[in-house]
Amino acid sequence: MTADTVDTSIKGITGVGDTGGVAAVTSAVRGRVDELLAGFLDARRPPVGDPDVAEGYRLLREFVVEGGKRIRPLLCYWGWRGAGGEEPHEDRAVVTGAALELYHAGLLIHDDVMDGSELRRGRPTIHRGLAGAPRWTGAETFGQSAAILLGVLAQAWADELLADAAAGDARGRAARALFNRMRTEVVTGQYLDILAHARADADVEQALTVIRYKTARYTVERPLQIGAALAGAPPALLEAYSRFGLPLGEAFQLRDDVLGVFGDPAVTGKPVLDDLREGKRTVLMAYAYARARGPERDRLRTWHGAPDLDERRAAELRQIIVDTGALGEVEDLIALRAGQALGALSDCAIAPEAARALAVLTERLTRRVR
Amino acid sequence: MTADTVDTSIKGITGVGDTGGVAAVTSAVRGRVDELLAGFLDARRPPVGDPDVAEGYRLLREFVVEGGKRIRPLLCYWGWRGAGGEEPHEDRAVVTGAALELYHAGLLIHDDVMDGSELRRGRPTIHRGLAGAPRWTGAETFGQSAAILLGVLAQAWADELLADAAAGDARGRAARALFNRMRTEVVTGQYLDILAHARADADVEQALTVIRYKTARYTVERPLQIGAALAGAPPALLEAYSRFGLPLGEAFQLRDDVLGVFGDPAVTGKPVLDDLREGKRTVLMAYAYARARGPERDRLRTWHGAPDLDERRAAELRQIIVDTGALGEVEDLIALRAGQALGALSDCAIAPEAARALAVLTERLTRRVR
Repeated sequence: MTADTVDTSIKGITGVGDTGGVAAVTSAVRGRVDELLAGFLDARRPPVGDPDVAEGYRLLREFVVEGGKRIRPLLCYWGWRGAGGEEPHEDRAVVTGAALELYHAGLLIHDDVMDGSELRRGRPTIHRGLAGAPRWTGAETFGQSAAILLGVLAQAWADELLADAAAGDARGRAARALFNRMRTEVVTGQYLDILAHARADADVEQALTVIRYKTARYTVERPLQIGAALAGAPPALLEAYSRFGLPLGEAFQLRDDVLGVFGDPAVTGKPVLDDLREGKRTVLMAYAYARARGPERDRLRTWHGAPDLDERRAAELRQIIVDTGALGEVEDLIALRAGQALGALSDCAIAPEAARALAVLTERLTRRVR
Repeated sequence: MTADTVDTSIKGITGVGDTGGVAAVTSAVRGRVDELLAGFLDARRPPVGDPDVAEGYRLLREFVVEGGKRIRPLLCYWGWRGAGGEEPHEDRAVVTGAALELYHAGLLIHDDVMDGSELRRGRPTIHRGLAGAPRWTGAETFGQSAAILLGVLAQAWADELLADAAAGDARGRAARALFNRMRTEVVTGQYLDILAHARADADVEQALTVIRYKTARYTVERPLQIGAALAGAPPALLEAYSRFGLPLGEAFQLRDDVLGVFGDPAVTGKPVLDDLREGKRTVLMAYAYARARGPERDRLRTWHGAPDLDERRAAELRQIIVDTGALGEVEDLIALRAGQALGALSDCAIAPEAARALAVLTERLTRRVR
């Protein structure tokens, strides 16, 4: 399946000219999540009166409120709508989505510490921003420690936000149980990811396992299911969301990996050399390693993960990724997974506007350029 | 007030020969918390089948189950008993105490990453243990990242454990609200702590603010109140627990700071040079900085926080801490706070066996050698 046939499938589900309402709702949900997060974080006053502590809280607020695509809240919302969620209980789905976003912010802050990343969403990462204040001794260490703490704080607060929305009844408990599983899965997926990096030997299969837990379940399957659980969805629908969400989540991460090497920094918000310099063991790179021979293989081993990688060497690496057919394999895999997702979506017995919205999201999360 | 008068006060409350029952209950609670944590962690199977992930889970389990004094669970339990908690609901207090302990394990794991500590409880810290596996590339980075993730996992699981115990009724919600405040307080206290370290200028007052949030509220006040809330305690008792818990918590941290410099590593479980090498900005050191003059001040500035500090220089620093009267000031402060705690305890309208147990804990947490 190619990108063109994916487009056709989307049109098949959404229908021409039928996405206006969905776009308006999506935009409204995003606005309400933003507003809710801003209000929640504004209400968190540091228990100690220190200007630098207040500055840490402010940075966290800014990071959460002023960036992010709100993918998880949107999937939570549409998962809820798809499962028959209706107006009077809408707040519950939106607050839960906001909790997912806040949790995610904490996870990203830690991710950037672990990867030593400089930029996120086009701005300095939290630990870099905090290390940048010139008056500190041991600024690097301070930045990292402060970022660990702010990430922990964001995750604890996410929990408080979720407790409000998921309290009380069986639906709330079901959503909560899925949230708990999601946390364990994503952290374990990240653990497997840093293991793969440390072992420096991840094959394609292992790299696919990492993205299943780190992204596919975490970013797509669980948010959909959490929303669905809040609407009292039966097990069959939760399973249907898995069949849709897992391939979509894999396609999304594969696309992200491709953009991390070939993407436009103005669009991705992070330097295009970061992934190659960090030596990320993505599926894309696993294919390249598996297929490169002789001098190509040597160059891959030498320059992938080299902190002093420059643009010329990066261009050579990109050429190897293309020449070995690794890029082509991953593009095929993205198209295949996106097609599987859309196929599974059309089999989901859900509200039509939710099906349309999820088809649009599928296209947005997997298309060639964002 | 001296250490001797503290002893007398304890005898006044506990009565001679009257602590046997309390000791048996304390020991039973500790046993049940251990058992509960072991069972809970044994049931957590990694969602991916990778031997190194399983090893990470195993290390976390070992860290939680095989070490720790269970101070917070004991305070939670006795706070609950003191507030009139009775047998049929005892599990709730014990499970909540176990959740506090699991949360604390996560916090310690992060603490050790932030401080770069080598030993904890007489064993390698989690990040050191994981970095020690010789086959990794970038072993240091792997150890730190893995420890960040395991700390996050412990905190998420603590939350799950607490959700079970604190669900459903108004008492549970009150306990939950206190737990939420506690998390924000301790993380903010740690933030203030690393700020003080980065600024390298903490005065006595600031160092006291750090220990109020990082230890006094977190270790003593909140666990007591959380237990009390589970027993439906009225606001007056929560306030009485504050008046007891805050000075006790401060005295405990001050004692810990003294032991960090003067203690026996065989007892404390950590190298006696760690605190001095890390340049910890404790109240003890704040007094020393405030009082040292001339060459003493220079030596303090040069060697406190020097990574290559040796035993001879450490002995000089200890002498300065004694000669400036800093140690004496802190010992006086410990005695004063312990006395305030015992005074407040005798004013608490709580069950007599709880008062006895808390008096015994006060002595244990603040006495000169543990």
